[in-house]
Parts: sequence; C-alpha cells; structure tokens
Amino acid sequence: MKASVKMLFLESSLELVPRELHREPDVIRSARRYEIPPARLILDKSLHYKAMRGLERKWKRGRPDIIHICLLLATDTPLTRMGVLEVYFHVLDGRVFKVRSDTRLPRHLERFKGVMADLLISDSVPVGSPDPLIFKVSDSLEEFVAREGKLILLWEKGEPRRPEEVVEEAIEENAIIGIGAFPRGDFEETTLRLAYKRYAIAGGHPLAAWSVTSRLLCELERRLGI
Amino acid sequence: MKASVKMLFLESSLELVPRELHREPDVIRSARRYEIPPARLILDKSLHYKAMRGLERKWKRGRPDIIHICLLLATDTPLTRMGVLEVYFHVLDGRVFKVRSDTRLPRHLERFKGVMADLLISDSVPVGSPDPLIFKVSDSLEEFVAREGKLILLWEKGEPRRPEEVVEEAIEENAIIGIGAFPRGDFEETTLRLAYKRYAIAGGHPLAAWSVTSRLLCELERRLGI
Repeated sequence: MKASVKMLFLESSLELVPRELHREPDVIRSARRYEIPPARLILDKSLHYKAMRGLERKWKRGRPDIIHICLLLATDTPLTRMGVLEVYFHVLDGRVFKVRSDTRLPRHLERFKGVMADLLISDSVPVGSPDPLIFKVSDSLEEFVAREGKLILLWEKGEPRRPEEVVEEAIEENAIIGIGAFPRGDFEETTLRLAYKRYAIAGGHPLAAWSVTSRLLCELERRLGI
Repeated sequence: MKASVKMLFLESSLELVPRELHREPDVIRSARRYEIPPARLILDKSLHYKAMRGLERKWKRGRPDIIHICLLLATDTPLTRMGVLEVYFHVLDGRVFKVRSDTRLPRHLERFKGVMADLLISDSVPVGSPDPLIFKVSDSLEEFVAREGKLILLWEKGEPRRPEEVVEEAIEENAIIGIGAFPRGDFEETTLRLAYKRYAIAGGHPLAAWSVTSRLLCELERRLGI
C-alpha cells in the first residue's frame, strides 16, 4: 500500500479586494497600473496598505505571496508528481481548494494573483474547463475535515514535536497536515478547534509558512524514500 | 567548535535592464507602471518578454523571483539567525554579495526588485549605510572561491548523492554549497570548473532552485541539531 499524505494550507491570506474598498485611491491606482478592474484584483498589502486601514483582522490579510511560495514548494516536489502528496488550501472565506498534482503554477506573483482572482470568482481554473487544475472541494473547513480525515495543526504554541515525528504520525493516522498561510496573529478559534493535535516544530519559535512547509516536505521526502 | 556552512546561489538570474533595451515598448511600459526609470529596473521576463527576444542566453535571464524565494528560505531558518549559515549570491556579471544574517528581506517581489536594483547599482544596501545588510564581497566567483573555500555544486548531471551526504561533506570539508539560481540551461563552463565536487540530489531529476535550497536547509537543520 502506498502511503499518501494531505497537506492543507490554512487561512491563506488570499482574497479579492472587498467591494467597499473599490473606490480607495490605492485600489484605483493598482487597477489602472495592472489594467485589471477592481473587482478582479487580489488584495495585496504592498499595494493597498492605506486602503486596508479600516479592515478588520487586517494583519492576517493581503499577503498572497505567502500561499504563492508555499504552493510553489509543495507542487515542485517529486512527492506531488508521484501522487504521494495531495495539496489543498483554505482561504479566509472558508472555501477549500485542491491543487492537482500536474498543475504548473505561475512563477511570478502578479500572474499567480491573476489565476487566483479567476479561481476565487469561478471556483475553478482554467475557468470553464471540464478538467480543472485547481478547484473547490469544500465550502468550509469543517466540512473538509469531516470528510478527509483528522487534522494535525502546525502551531507555534502547540506541543513540541520534531518534524519527522509529525510526518510519521500524519502517515500512520492518515491525518491532514495543516499549515497556516497568513502573516501574523493566530489561527481562528474555529480552526484550532478542528485540529485533533497541535504541534510546534521549532521549539515555539515562529517560522514563516514557507519554512514550515519546506521542513515538512523534506521530512516527507525522506520518510517516503525519495 | 561550532560547525558553520556557507550557501552560495550561483548565476542568479538578476540584473538591471540592459541599456540597449531601455527604449523597448515593454520596458517603457513597466517603467511607467512602476514609476521607476528604466536604468533602475530589474530585468523581468514576465514584464519584458518581448524586449528580451534578442538577448543572448535569454533562457537564463530575467527571473528575479528565483533568487528572491531562495533568499527568503535561506534567511528565515534558525540556522541563519544563529550565525551557523552564511548566505551569499553570485549574479551573472560575476559579482558575489553577502546577505547578513539579520537582514529582513522584502516579502513582496516588487519591493525585493527595488532593493536589488539599489544593490546592483551601489554594491551595498541600504545605500550609503556604513553597516550595510547586503554587500559585495567579490568581483568574481573565482576570487570568492579562492578565498572562501572549496565549492560543492548541486548539479542535476553530477554524481548521485543524498542531501544529507552533501551536507555532511560540506561541514567536514568546510566547503561552500553552491546552488544554481537560474531557470533553465546549464551552469557556465567557468562555474563548473570552479567546483571540486558536483552532486545530483534527486537522481538526476531537475528541481527548482528553491526546492534544492529547501532540501539542503532541512538537512542542515537536522545535522546541526535544530
């Protein structure tokens, strides 16, 4: 039997510019710069910093670069190409998307943002394809976890564990490995409650999402003999 | 004695837009879009694809996103913060730069490109600082290798080695770990000749630069007990 593992990026800092910000000068300026209507723009702190002033939980929002790098790492490993690793990501509005193993993601952030805007609007890309590369699999994290298996959360306040132990447990228990893909602040209570285990892999030191991803991928490659 | 390791990104696809392209429509358009004069723009294939048609070795050029992601990974590990890992990168014009361990790189590609333009023009950033975070350490790779130690090259056509063996040898021999940071094609002959060992870590499969980086960082963290 072939071991397989699910990796899920949680609360990814990825969303369209909220409608109430469409008339903000920052937003109008970036819409003009990229020749994209505001309704198809991804919220990006480095472009919409001022516009975001009044947003709630703004410290978790507007960082599409995080999920971009995490997905680039997770889809470039031999694990994904061999179908041993399944890659999913959850966004702040609750939806969960699957990234097919043969997806070649845009390397450039601006192009990635374009694809993500299509995805958030249409629930799948390429838009209208009968055989999409990235597509919605759940409307909520709760639904996803109930269907796909137990969730192990990587969390700097969790129980200390070595990355290889986390990987071992995920394989043995057929659990989902959950990694936060937001810049700061903590997981939502609703996310924390869904996890059956919460582990810290760097002795409680905060790590960037891509570093956590990279460390776990590496242990998976080792464990699965690649 | 504390083990320490040098990681060097080679032939990084990072340069200013060459002067002869300053009047190309692509270049003028991106200069206007970002409000940056053409002489301070980083060559970027996703913006300057047409302008790059006639460039020699164009398949290796115009991908600043590669070194961006590699440096984000290499500077976010506890290894760098503890001073165990030294991070360098070499660009196509031959210069080698050091990234100080307390550097917080811009997360967003466009901002990173801005900093890199300053660096390529002034040889150090912040520009004019007596205590720069990123600065030139050599004018050529040859000079760098002669001074800093033997070079182990990660090369898909090299001898097969497991990542942990590469790391072990780099520590024992006090060798520099060299990783290509360009999109396609091979190392220059001049680079290959400078390496005393050339190893393939994925059985000859090509891996993205950031995946090679991530795999080696992980083995370093393991080996150095982090």
